Amino acid sequence: MEAPGPARVTIRQVADHAGVSEAAASYALNGRRGVSEQTRARVLAAASDLGWAPNLAARSLGSSRASAVGLVIVRPPRQMIIDSWFTQMLSGVEAELNRNGMALVLHLVDRIEDTVDVYRKWWAGRHVDGVILTDLRKRDPRLDALMEIGLPGAVIGGGPGIDGFSTVDADPAPMARTVVGYLMALGHRAIARVAGTEELVHTGQRDLAYLDALAAAGLDSGVYRVVYTDYSAIAGMRATRELLSVAEPPTAIVFDNDVMAAASLKVMHEMGLSVPEDVSIVAWDDSDLCEITVPSITAVQQKPTHQAELAARALLAMLDGGEPSHTTLPAGTLNPRQSTRPLRRAGS
Amino acid sequence: MEAPGPARVTIRQVADHAGVSEAAASYALNGRRGVSEQTRARVLAAASDLGWAPNLAARSLGSSRASAVGLVIVRPPRQMIIDSWFTQMLSGVEAELNRNGMALVLHLVDRIEDTVDVYRKWWAGRHVDGVILTDLRKRDPRLDALMEIGLPGAVIGGGPGIDGFSTVDADPAPMARTVVGYLMALGHRAIARVAGTEELVHTGQRDLAYLDALAAAGLDSGVYRVVYTDYSAIAGMRATRELLSVAEPPTAIVFDNDVMAAASLKVMHEMGLSVPEDVSIVAWDDSDLCEITVPSITAVQQKPTHQAELAARALLAMLDGGEPSHTTLPAGTLNPRQSTRPLRRAGS
Repeated sequence: MEAPGPARVTIRQVADHAGVSEAAASYALNGRRGVSEQTRARVLAAASDLGWAPNLAARSLGSSRASAVGLVIVRPPRQMIIDSWFTQMLSGVEAELNRNGMALVLHLVDRIEDTVDVYRKWWAGRHVDGVILTDLRKRDPRLDALMEIGLPGAVIGGGPGIDGFSTVDADPAPMARTVVGYLMALGHRAIARVAGTEELVHTGQRDLAYLDALAAAGLDSGVYRVVYTDYSAIAGMRATRELLSVAEPPTAIVFDNDVMAAASLKVMHEMGLSVPEDVSIVAWDDSDLCEITVPSITAVQQKPTHQAELAARALLAMLDGGEPSHTTLPAGTLNPRQSTRPLRRAGS
Repeated sequence: MEAPGPARVTIRQVADHAGVSEAAASYALNGRRGVSEQTRARVLAAASDLGWAPNLAARSLGSSRASAVGLVIVRPPRQMIIDSWFTQMLSGVEAELNRNGMALVLHLVDRIEDTVDVYRKWWAGRHVDGVILTDLRKRDPRLDALMEIGLPGAVIGGGPGIDGFSTVDADPAPMARTVVGYLMALGHRAIARVAGTEELVHTGQRDLAYLDALAAAGLDSGVYRVVYTDYSAIAGMRATRELLSVAEPPTAIVFDNDVMAAASLKVMHEMGLSVPEDVSIVAWDDSDLCEITVPSITAVQQKPTHQAELAARALLAMLDGGEPSHTTLPAGTLNPRQSTRPLRRAGS
């Protein structure tokens, strides 16, 4: 057991002493890009003055290495049907850690703010060597907190690159063009979307990808309607009803996960609408669920397991002293099934 | 960091020295019931001779306590739709651990034999203080291994009591009587079952519970047919097709989880059968999935989250020096929905 020793000098103290932001001090002290050489020199001098010791170096001595990676999931447990993305992601992370003799420490929290507390506890108890992040928010408190704590992280999704973190991103732009092109080829022009949680970077990426795809196809983006949800079945049903309860409803709807697409079939049935005769639907992502529904659901197949494996691998490389890395996955594939068909023309 | 020190005296060595089985030595040394006072005295004398030191006591000194509980899941990751039981169980364990400042270390393995290796690694690295077990097998190698390692465990399900472990069991007998009684009241006599994995204690408990319920209702159990599965959607579909492809098919089918019940609707549709007009179906357990299908599915609602919380609590009590405890949960409730209706009489 380590002796308690004098209070640790914090990055905040170093930053104050050097007259720079905490983020800049963190970047400089962790040897990451994103600060000028001048700033780095000033921060290092301040760190030296104050006797700051890097956390990572202390841990990599071996005795206190946890041989574990942490994953805090912010989705609330009341979501009883978990979309396939979650389970595939989890098994991908686990498979890669397992191959490397590392354990996965899992924590479920209700609010993202609670995540930072977990990180601090983990760090204080040396429970994990690094963390995997998912569901990155547009303003995400976890990134700054991890920088300040000095805990390495790899982000699944979240954009093409974040300084100081490894990222493995799936660019939705090519896939959105495929989906829009496919629906247009079937004659659909009024295409709506039941999206995931609006605060997620991921959702923002798809928002842009769809708008670009519609523009590229020459469609008026004013016709494109989006309803945001929390990815749950009940929210997907509510959003479907909302989209279809207007004077000129969409003829095709794309859903940001498999669970909501499957649940929408119930709403259509209740409203006396048939899929695909009255409305075509597409799920993004694909899963067994899309195959067992009647009709089966046309879906975008990506590789969340592979994405998660790459993220875990990138994190392990950082723990071995490597630089953060940034990977963008190739586009997925579209699996046409029974839920999409050519638009029935008025009067036909 | 602890000094390596001399090689630890194992329970096996103590058992050999005392001339008793390893299990008996483990029971005696861990202060658990299941051995005579005479045997316990002989084992303790042998332990004293050899200088054996109890693992738990060593860990509870604090410095090497992991503050974490382990959970190894044997279900293979290819099962992409995870039944609601799993996610509810996971959030229950997590909630209770979280309230007590304990972390959950999660591991997915393909085969149960791999679990024991994980336990040994965890113990060697002091990664966990105890483990939660689910999906207990009829001959389960994990119990003896944990006894030998000296790692405390709590079992979710698995029967009303296992020496040396805490158990939180859900007795299926009253619920099976409710389900059979409900279907009989609707006129059904030919009731089949799509069961889970045959090797599970859990499945064996339900087997007996159904046979008892049929006997209590005066039904000929020769008419009752069971097909065992791995709980996956695809296995559920195959089993449904098998049950319905005979000369005198059942008029009602009960499924051992929600995913298989939902998937069976696809098979019925393909076979030109309607639910509930031609076949009534019941899912055990309930979930959102049973509500979003068309028709919605009559289901047995239990409380896996609560059950898992109690198991985690029982384990934490053991870590604090308490005795293993055994709890049996009250019966669940049956939620009738659209998938069950009175039997259509021949000719009507």
